Amino acid sequence: MKIKIIVTLKSGVLDPQGKAIQQTLNGMGFLDVKDVRQGKYFDIETNETDEVKAKNKVDEMCKKLLANLVIEDYKIL
Amino acid sequence: MKIKIIVTLKSGVLDPQGKAIQQTLNGMGFLDVKDVRQGKYFDIETNETDEVKAKNKVDEMCKKLLANLVIEDYKIL
Repeated sequence: MKIKIIVTLKSGVLDPQGKAIQQTLNGMGFLDVKDVRQGKYFDIETNETDEVKAKNKVDEMCKKLLANLVIEDYKIL
Repeated sequence: MKIKIIVTLKSGVLDPQGKAIQQTLNGMGFLDVKDVRQGKYFDIETNETDEVKAKNKVDEMCKKLLANLVIEDYKIL
């Protein structure tokens, strides 16, 4: 089965890349854009067929590799 | 309001970064992981309060800047 994950910077953490995108969008005429935050997205395809077990495994992967919990949050969709 | 976007590589497009993550996860003992695809995630905060109008604007932003439609797909959540 396929599990989707979103990893985002915690709200206090500076996001210069998001800021650059926001400024570019403003410069292109999208003046309503107030803030942009960029994050990462992962699609994990696993052989595990039990959804609960698969999500538990993915939670472990997030903690050990995919997210840096000091500055990032993750959400398993 | 806040609009969320996910940008992913189209299915035929090679994803070496995802492949590297998959191999690392396998090496860490997550042997069930068959495939990993990495994408980008954006949180766009806009002053527009009408949801339909905001999503239309964001759709335009995706086409013009956030996604490369030759190799990427996007989804507005």
